[in-house]
Amino acid sequence: MDASQTPDVVGKTRVRVRYAETDQMRVVYHANYLVWFEIGRVELMRQLGLEYSEMEAEGCGIAVVEARVRYKLPARYDDELVVETWLAKVRGPIVQFAYRITREPNQVLLCEGETVHIVVGLDMKRRHMPKKYVDLLAAAASDTLA
Amino acid sequence: MDASQTPDVVGKTRVRVRYAETDQMRVVYHANYLVWFEIGRVELMRQLGLEYSEMEAEGCGIAVVEARVRYKLPARYDDELVVETWLAKVRGPIVQFAYRITREPNQVLLCEGETVHIVVGLDMKRRHMPKKYVDLLAAAASDTLA
Amino acid sequence: MDASQTPDVVGKTRVRVRYAETDQMRVVYHANYLVWFEIGRVELMRQLGLEYSEMEAEGCGIAVVEARVRYKLPARYDDELVVETWLAKVRGPIVQFAYRITREPNQVLLCEGETVHIVVGLDMKRRHMPKKYVDLLAAAASDTLA
Amino acid sequence: MDASQTPDVVGKTRVRVRYAETDQMRVVYHANYLVWFEIGRVELMRQLGLEYSEMEAEGCGIAVVEARVRYKLPARYDDELVVETWLAKVRGPIVQFAYRITREPNQVLLCEGETVHIVVGLDMKRRHMPKKYVDLLAAAASDTLA
Repeated sequence: MDASQTPDVVGKTRVRVRYAETDQMRVVYHANYLVWFEIGRVELMRQLGLEYSEMEAEGCGIAVVEARVRYKLPARYDDELVVETWLAKVRGPIVQFAYRITREPNQVLLCEGETVHIVVGLDMKRRHMPKKYVDLLAAAASDTLA
Repeated sequence: MDASQTPDVVGKTRVRVRYAETDQMRVVYHANYLVWFEIGRVELMRQLGLEYSEMEAEGCGIAVVEARVRYKLPARYDDELVVETWLAKVRGPIVQFAYRITREPNQVLLCEGETVHIVVGLDMKRRHMPKKYVDLLAAAASDTLA
Repeated sequence: MDASQTPDVVGKTRVRVRYAETDQMRVVYHANYLVWFEIGRVELMRQLGLEYSEMEAEGCGIAVVEARVRYKLPARYDDELVVETWLAKVRGPIVQFAYRITREPNQVLLCEGETVHIVVGLDMKRRHMPKKYVDLLAAAASDTLA
Repeated sequence: MDASQTPDVVGKTRVRVRYAETDQMRVVYHANYLVWFEIGRVELMRQLGLEYSEMEAEGCGIAVVEARVRYKLPARYDDELVVETWLAKVRGPIVQFAYRITREPNQVLLCEGETVHIVVGLDMKRRHMPKKYVDLLAAAASDTLA
């Protein structure tokens, strides 16, 4: 599947822009979109039955190894946003998420991006993801090679 | 000693305001002063011979239990600031730091504050601070009752 | 009214702890509570009929001049929190808010605090708040002297 | 020039990792690298004779339209980092910066990335950059087509 396609399982999370997230250009500071991506990612996993805090308590995290963000239009203070998140790829220890952020009420596209992750232990070293989690994620990704 | 007095041992750390720290009022977002206080605190401890990262590696942290900030004038993007930090009190497991933030080149006072800490283990439960650290801190505090 | 009393009009806002808000003690970094206070403040004002973004668009902001936070128990990643906010005082250009943050589902108290604000123009200089806003806020504060 | 090549004019800025920048994996939260990129960018411009705060005061900003980060090894609390920044491309209203972040004292590579910017006015709409700034930036970029 092309990462630009949106698959069936898409998490949708709402975020309202905080004053702390703005900068003196009167728009959201660009690093904050990565924080919203993370919120979308966690909520998608929750929707798939995977509680990230439990997975981490079992000694398994998904560290970010790459992030790409394309900014289209600025988000502003108090905007209501929707973060759409989906699994673009699951390949062994590599998991790739894709994101679209739109502004309500008219679904104006503000931002798109992807993050690539590898599964790590609490020592930040690469490890295998427990099979129950692989199965949950792979079932939701169009491009899977477990 | 009154906390408003500045004692002999005062740590001085320089900080330049980051764009990320501004908000849409075109001034620094107020929560960031607590981050600068923390930088001042760590640098004061380093100056006293206490590396906070080592202390934490030994299972000992200083959790914030109270913070007070009085904002006088706003810091702005790219300002060069000086964070002055000193130990106001060391009383058993309680450590209190005080802070002044001024803007260069004219030492204009922007902000004052205090933070109160208790010594905790990695489980966030109260514990005793190792004697070597108590001694380092107590020697620099005017109001000490170890 | 004593600021420790909770008045009739209390805003309640829900916040879920973000991964970005944690630190390496595995708890929320202490400066983030000020960000949550701000969210509570804005939502209380909205509930009273005052949209802060509109007020600011009319050239009127409420700058923080003092903040106090008392930390009781740490918030942790993915916790669901409730931020309770109320107006403790409205006295001419001075507005004081008070806050309690509890953790769901058992309303465990994590944090209390207050922030004091003065009304400013976009130049950050003190100004009068338009009467319509004073009236909205004063009606919700127990300790009022407009 | 290939963006992977490092040109002659490279800004070098030092950053020490703040406690606020860590997360509960005991490493720096990944969004913070974008903040350090920004610090590197501003310091490179300053080194080239362009004060970003002055440029902005003249109604001219450089908005981020794309960001890419490749994380190699995690930065940790209190690490001393060097942010190397250079101009990869200046093409009319498009400016591209590239970055490498290494950890002292051994220059271990932690992170690489690029950001693409367009010149905007205070209304966030595309505009021309004043010629004096174009000249300063173009002189330092290997791939220039003003």
